[in-house]
Amino acid sequence: MRRLRVAVVGATGAVGRQMLSLLEERRFPVSDVVPLASAQSAGKRLSFGGGEVEVRALGPGSFEGVELALFSAGASVSREFCPVAAQAGALVVDNSSAWRMDPQVPLVVPEANLAAARTRPKGIIANPNCSTIQMIVALDPIRRAAGISRIFVSTYQAVSGKGARAIDELRVASERSLRGEEHAYQVFPGPMAFNVQADWKPAEGGYNEEELKMVNETRKIWGDPSIRVSPTTMRVPVLNGHTESIVVETTRKVTVAEARRLLSSAPGVVLCDEDRQPLPLAASGRDEVFVGRIREDLAVDNGLCLVVAADNLRKGAATNAIQIAEKLLLAAA
Amino acid sequence: MRRLRVAVVGATGAVGRQMLSLLEERRFPVSDVVPLASAQSAGKRLSFGGGEVEVRALGPGSFEGVELALFSAGASVSREFCPVAAQAGALVVDNSSAWRMDPQVPLVVPEANLAAARTRPKGIIANPNCSTIQMIVALDPIRRAAGISRIFVSTYQAVSGKGARAIDELRVASERSLRGEEHAYQVFPGPMAFNVQADWKPAEGGYNEEELKMVNETRKIWGDPSIRVSPTTMRVPVLNGHTESIVVETTRKVTVAEARRLLSSAPGVVLCDEDRQPLPLAASGRDEVFVGRIREDLAVDNGLCLVVAADNLRKGAATNAIQIAEKLLLAAA
Repeated sequence: MRRLRVAVVGATGAVGRQMLSLLEERRFPVSDVVPLASAQSAGKRLSFGGGEVEVRALGPGSFEGVELALFSAGASVSREFCPVAAQAGALVVDNSSAWRMDPQVPLVVPEANLAAARTRPKGIIANPNCSTIQMIVALDPIRRAAGISRIFVSTYQAVSGKGARAIDELRVASERSLRGEEHAYQVFPGPMAFNVQADWKPAEGGYNEEELKMVNETRKIWGDPSIRVSPTTMRVPVLNGHTESIVVETTRKVTVAEARRLLSSAPGVVLCDEDRQPLPLAASGRDEVFVGRIREDLAVDNGLCLVVAADNLRKGAATNAIQIAEKLLLAAA
Repeated sequence: MRRLRVAVVGATGAVGRQMLSLLEERRFPVSDVVPLASAQSAGKRLSFGGGEVEVRALGPGSFEGVELALFSAGASVSREFCPVAAQAGALVVDNSSAWRMDPQVPLVVPEANLAAARTRPKGIIANPNCSTIQMIVALDPIRRAAGISRIFVSTYQAVSGKGARAIDELRVASERSLRGEEHAYQVFPGPMAFNVQADWKPAEGGYNEEELKMVNETRKIWGDPSIRVSPTTMRVPVLNGHTESIVVETTRKVTVAEARRLLSSAPGVVLCDEDRQPLPLAASGRDEVFVGRIREDLAVDNGLCLVVAADNLRKGAATNAIQIAEKLLLAAA
């Protein structure tokens, strides 16, 4: 199999490191890897392929000969450098929010809308938000079978979605809290140890950015602007692994038995037995989306309740991006 | 003011201790306190009123001369001993689930349905479940103004609701987890440190006991069996303070401005400024219910989203019970 030159932009971040380790773990055919980051991180060494690779400073010349560029360095970096990488001939898969709502950029969850990735006039494919990805993977089989009109979702999001520094801060703050000491938070806007909060920027109508991403990205991925999504996003003191409580209203009645049958054979889904439940701690380190606690909803007639957990750094970010690349670059090889 | 002989059943538990400290804090006119618990706890000394009181073993003769009996020792103890205390002439306020759905026992949140407490053929008043109480306090002003047809609620519940041993276990398990060590859980059915789970007993239709309490108690308190409640209850690694993400559908449109106006003057409610949010860590130690993040819902036409946080040991249990007693016993004094 032909091997590819792969750039990872934001290689020292929580998602970037996960991308590097997934390239190894999934035996992605890499000829050489180009880890890119800000100038401050240049020169750092990261383990890869049994050896080490040196982080280089991202610049206009970084993408020469690169065939796949995986971006996870924030929206402003992506806005500037995704077009540079695409111009250099790379397939670009961007994990930031920069291009997600661009009509010329497909927004892709392979289990749901891989076909959209075939048309990419800018050479860029956007990876959805972590919370959106796991919801789409869990609900897509139900949508295909019965249609979806409304979704009510409340999230229980891990701190890893805020980056490696957030993980460190929750650990340190938890230790201090257990010793009865104060912690001066730097990454979180307020206390995160043994607390619950929404720590995203306010956006519109009282909703925060994360919540509006769940609304807009869901509609774009499914190509259905009529779907109504009611989102409340919250951060919980979990290191890694997002959980979601979802009520979904379908356009025709779906029984719990039918939903379980649909999900038991769905791609990328692990259906939990009825006496088990999806747990973020168990989902952490796994590539699948765990679905369980499926119940007939008590408030809407064609409603189902379910709980969904997934590793937000893997399926919610790095795994989804690499799966897109695998489908597009390796299927033909 | 006449002083009352007050029994606290389950005095060594998390809620029982909270009841004792609230009797002091609220200067409840106690002549003497009778702390009751199981035979194993008898002889333990608890601080009260600047001195100490000795825990006695609960028995048929425990309630002689008792005018107020506050129960929080589990449903089986309440089933046996609430009638004994009532027979002895005490006003009984029971925090367990034993009597909540008994048609001859009023289920009371003072802010919402104090009048129901006046008719108590068994001499027993039931205190609702913690998750129900804070939801009722937050939504009652909206219901009075506009009626409520549906509620979708996802909870983020603290471990203190499971008792004092659960608080200890989360602390120890968190310390061990941060050191990379395993913990053999005894109170929780599975890992709780840095995890999310529903740890209540399965009840019916995939719902657990806690979820069905929220459905049935809400209908009873508001005297409206037509209200549809969709509950998902989850435990998060928070020591004390429950949070809830709620979508409420009203029978007529309520704007965010109207909801904020209604809640700003509502009894027992602290309305958070628009740039703040209810936090369980901040609600812990407080008697009010914190309400915020009020948004026009995006999935139902007459819908509002809100986030609610309260101290589950205080307003969710001990405070609510003592407020009932204050209203019934002291108002006339």
